[in-house]
Amino acid sequence: MSLIDDLKWRYATKKMNGQPVAEDKLNYILEAARLAPSSSGLQPYKIFVISDREKLAQIREFAFNQSQITDCSHLLIWAAWDGYSEERIGEVLLKIFREKGLPDKNAEDYKNTLWGMYRALSNDWHANHSAKQAYISFGLAIAAAAEQKVDATPMEGFDKEKLDAFLELDKQGLKSVVILPIGYRDPENDWLVNLKKVRAPKEEFVVEIE
Amino acid sequence: MSLIDDLKWRYATKKMNGQPVAEDKLNYILEAARLAPSSSGLQPYKIFVISDREKLAQIREFAFNQSQITDCSHLLIWAAWDGYSEERIGEVLLKIFREKGLPDKNAEDYKNTLWGMYRALSNDWHANHSAKQAYISFGLAIAAAAEQKVDATPMEGFDKEKLDAFLELDKQGLKSVVILPIGYRDPENDWLVNLKKVRAPKEEFVVEIE
Repeated sequence: MSLIDDLKWRYATKKMNGQPVAEDKLNYILEAARLAPSSSGLQPYKIFVISDREKLAQIREFAFNQSQITDCSHLLIWAAWDGYSEERIGEVLLKIFREKGLPDKNAEDYKNTLWGMYRALSNDWHANHSAKQAYISFGLAIAAAAEQKVDATPMEGFDKEKLDAFLELDKQGLKSVVILPIGYRDPENDWLVNLKKVRAPKEEFVVEIE
Repeated sequence: MSLIDDLKWRYATKKMNGQPVAEDKLNYILEAARLAPSSSGLQPYKIFVISDREKLAQIREFAFNQSQITDCSHLLIWAAWDGYSEERIGEVLLKIFREKGLPDKNAEDYKNTLWGMYRALSNDWHANHSAKQAYISFGLAIAAAAEQKVDATPMEGFDKEKLDAFLELDKQGLKSVVILPIGYRDPENDWLVNLKKVRAPKEEFVVEIE
């Protein structure tokens, strides 16, 4: 199976059957998410993983009561930095440069360049920028799940403030951005499973500039 | 090779050798990008593809003079909707529902629900939201390129206003969000190729909530 086959196989599962996803598959999906590239390598986000049934039931209440939240095996939550700061950027860059075997001075110089650009931008810009990096990782997790024949439902429909409060993300300088229940489809009770996957045709989606 | 192997193989190529990417591989990468999921299936973005050397030389000027812009085979540019509107949403949803064999009335109802939420949100929110969808597609294109052993460099470092003007994106209601030169690495002249890939360790990146 190729990535294209996997992407054709997957769909935004509407009904899951409650079967658990094995630990090795869960770890595989998280590993793909962790390997995602991000701007300057900062990885300004984390993934929270929840499988506790009571907690999922509570989260479902502020996620439009969508059944996948409780019928999934695990709920993955991407939470991005609520803003950049000189300290945050500096700390990560120093780690990266040291692991790569590059001088601390280079990390410091790069931090100064980056912070020189970011400091003038609004907190809203910061939060959107870190969230966008999380979406790359989110995309790779979706691909990894499909490769492992694990179903997954990309979801933005939840009350971010309530989820942030529930996970106490503000204390960690994070904001929830997007969630992904993973599990297994229940085809007999899923209205979407047999409907055609629709995408914009290539001739509209791709514009070749001559 | 699995997706994880592909993600370990890839890196943000700093020097490309000018070799062309075959048409079938280019199309494969674009197909993965096209199959990406997006919020409500709207796919609020397009991909512009440029291989013309003169145009690439011009773009390089407003992309911090990064050499990959001219040493790549093709430059892929994700351009997202500059905002949502009732018409834009309605048109896409109608197409999707018809192709799925669902009644027009359902598309209309869904449009009203969606627009009911989006109309109250700022244009800046709209543009960030459509851009985030593009980032999922961008992530899948990066994965597809790696699977095809095509190098790719995720890039946000370019003057968006200048690129928008160059491609006349405003006339199309679009804004450039992120770019991806694809091609082949020139390992002898790439300072990054042999340095360790650094990511946050799993125990920091993943938070398991008990």
